[in-house]
Amino acid sequence: MLALAGYPLGLRFRFLDRVAEAPAGQLAELLQGDYADEAVLGRFAEGLELITYEFENVPVGAAKWLAERRPVYPPPVALEVAQDRLAEKTFFQGLGIPTPLFYPVLTQNDLLDGLERTGFPAILKTRRLGYDGKGQKLLHSSNDLETAWLQLGGQPLILEAFVPFERELSILAVRSRSGQVAFYPLVENHHAGGILRKSLAPAPATPARLQHEAEHLALRVMEKLDYVGVLAIELFEVEGTLWANEMAPRVHNSGHWTIEGAETSQFENHLRAVLGLPLGSTAARGHSAMLNLIGQRPNTALVLEIPGAHLHWYGKAVRPGRKVGHITLRTAAPDALEVGLKQLEAVLAETPAAAPLTD
Amino acid sequence: MLALAGYPLGLRFRFLDRVAEAPAGQLAELLQGDYADEAVLGRFAEGLELITYEFENVPVGAAKWLAERRPVYPPPVALEVAQDRLAEKTFFQGLGIPTPLFYPVLTQNDLLDGLERTGFPAILKTRRLGYDGKGQKLLHSSNDLETAWLQLGGQPLILEAFVPFERELSILAVRSRSGQVAFYPLVENHHAGGILRKSLAPAPATPARLQHEAEHLALRVMEKLDYVGVLAIELFEVEGTLWANEMAPRVHNSGHWTIEGAETSQFENHLRAVLGLPLGSTAARGHSAMLNLIGQRPNTALVLEIPGAHLHWYGKAVRPGRKVGHITLRTAAPDALEVGLKQLEAVLAETPAAAPLTD
Repeated sequence: MLALAGYPLGLRFRFLDRVAEAPAGQLAELLQGDYADEAVLGRFAEGLELITYEFENVPVGAAKWLAERRPVYPPPVALEVAQDRLAEKTFFQGLGIPTPLFYPVLTQNDLLDGLERTGFPAILKTRRLGYDGKGQKLLHSSNDLETAWLQLGGQPLILEAFVPFERELSILAVRSRSGQVAFYPLVENHHAGGILRKSLAPAPATPARLQHEAEHLALRVMEKLDYVGVLAIELFEVEGTLWANEMAPRVHNSGHWTIEGAETSQFENHLRAVLGLPLGSTAARGHSAMLNLIGQRPNTALVLEIPGAHLHWYGKAVRPGRKVGHITLRTAAPDALEVGLKQLEAVLAETPAAAPLTD
Repeated sequence: MLALAGYPLGLRFRFLDRVAEAPAGQLAELLQGDYADEAVLGRFAEGLELITYEFENVPVGAAKWLAERRPVYPPPVALEVAQDRLAEKTFFQGLGIPTPLFYPVLTQNDLLDGLERTGFPAILKTRRLGYDGKGQKLLHSSNDLETAWLQLGGQPLILEAFVPFERELSILAVRSRSGQVAFYPLVENHHAGGILRKSLAPAPATPARLQHEAEHLALRVMEKLDYVGVLAIELFEVEGTLWANEMAPRVHNSGHWTIEGAETSQFENHLRAVLGLPLGSTAARGHSAMLNLIGQRPNTALVLEIPGAHLHWYGKAVRPGRKVGHITLRTAAPDALEVGLKQLEAVLAETPAAAPLTD
């Protein structure tokens, strides 16, 4: 999606991915190799003007190695903070941004100490490499401790208090090399099984005060990190205030609606930011809903016959639980969005999921 | 632009072009070869599901050869009609669509006979392969005849009465394999030196009656040709009625604004049409102006800092008179469009044109 947004700006691309079948290879040069292999990184960097990433688990070492040779945006330090839940929450705390209570856990004793502060329910998470709900366990009572420890113990963990939030929101912010900043309207996110299923943008019934609070919070994060590019911060709305849950130093799934639903997409604005070009307007155009396609490929005709539906198929093999595309529904009026969303959800409900063993 | 619109639909592309540097080669497989070479056409068609074109001068023979082997849309007959100004105007006439008075010219005597019917001013044009104002000559008086004949004589020509039109408009229409049709709002076009410079969409101050007339006219053309895909018809507004000037059986420069300015772009709708998928909404989103970049590459930052400006650079070498990109300015309100357009026109006026000998 970055390349699709970048060609009209006159850009050319080279992608580095661990797998040769990465979808970007359909529309640009693709180098396949390991991120930890300096020979690969050297070949990748050769002749490039600058480097960016849209995958959160790029090793910080690789990003830093590249940053010594070419401009790399967002700065590797953002990756470093975002890859470790403890560093991330400590970072938020240091900026005075509210987060759920958290407690670092290395031993079973740490876990018990932590639970005295958080109480039940609480969530035990791996500090690193968690995504889409993987590497975490909800603890309802002490009965859950043994299973959770068996599953997650033996690596650095973090215990977090369960936050009785009203809803999950996210703010997409962007900061350019020149320091110019812009913010998209807050997005309301709906997860199931730890995976983002649906985003509504702009987030319905959101007071201007909340938007202002989110922008202020994102601005502090970006300035502290001397950030360049699009940054997503996942937030909890708790009794009318915002708590930071986590951040993603990249274009983000909860910003995919911007392709049709905003004047300038997050992908174009990310490119403008890393190139030091003026940022484009982040204003919403009408009302959008984004539905992820997870392990299923719906019938294209059924999707496209819904007014305002825009399909984004990623060209990936369909596997259970894998994000293989998304659909953005955009309408001028909010009631039309509701009607279309019901139709679209019905189409997806009737689409069989990939069987666990296909492909 | 077709490929950029098609990847999100899950499509893959192979392009055939006479030149190896064709921009499409940056983002899809490109086969370089002559359209008249059956070996090339055979390699091109190999494994394709269907074939379309976005270049009006594809030889009809090549399109027909391919159509015997694969579905080809728009139908080659549309190409055949559009490539010959005499056939085209006769075709419009046969459908009862008003056109300028015209007269076929093979000899100098034909020219004199024709001028008796059209009077001065009149336009002498080659019947085939004219585009962007090439291959035509405006005749003000009999003094112009000798030069015009020297320049154009010796090939089939057409003489057309000069139409004192109020303005030039175009209608972008689309018809799918299933027969579904849709129409974009009328566009107002401004040419200079025979080349499209600016399109305003929707065309300002256009009564619904005119839109209806244009749709009815385009519908007759598409049904007569059993047309599939996007069709553009260039029109003259003459005393509140529409006259057909010419048609283009393809996505069209005067429809480029639809990428940002309509719910579904002409490129996506062309693909939906040829695939037999439901057509997307053709409704305008706000107000758009499209400016062609002709033989000049403006400073990207100056363009992008204008609110609502979207750059489309084609990745071509800059040569005098060559269309190398376009900029669409999209705003919610018409007065904001006027302000932005002034800024944008100032940026383009300050951009040096390619020198005749560069590149």
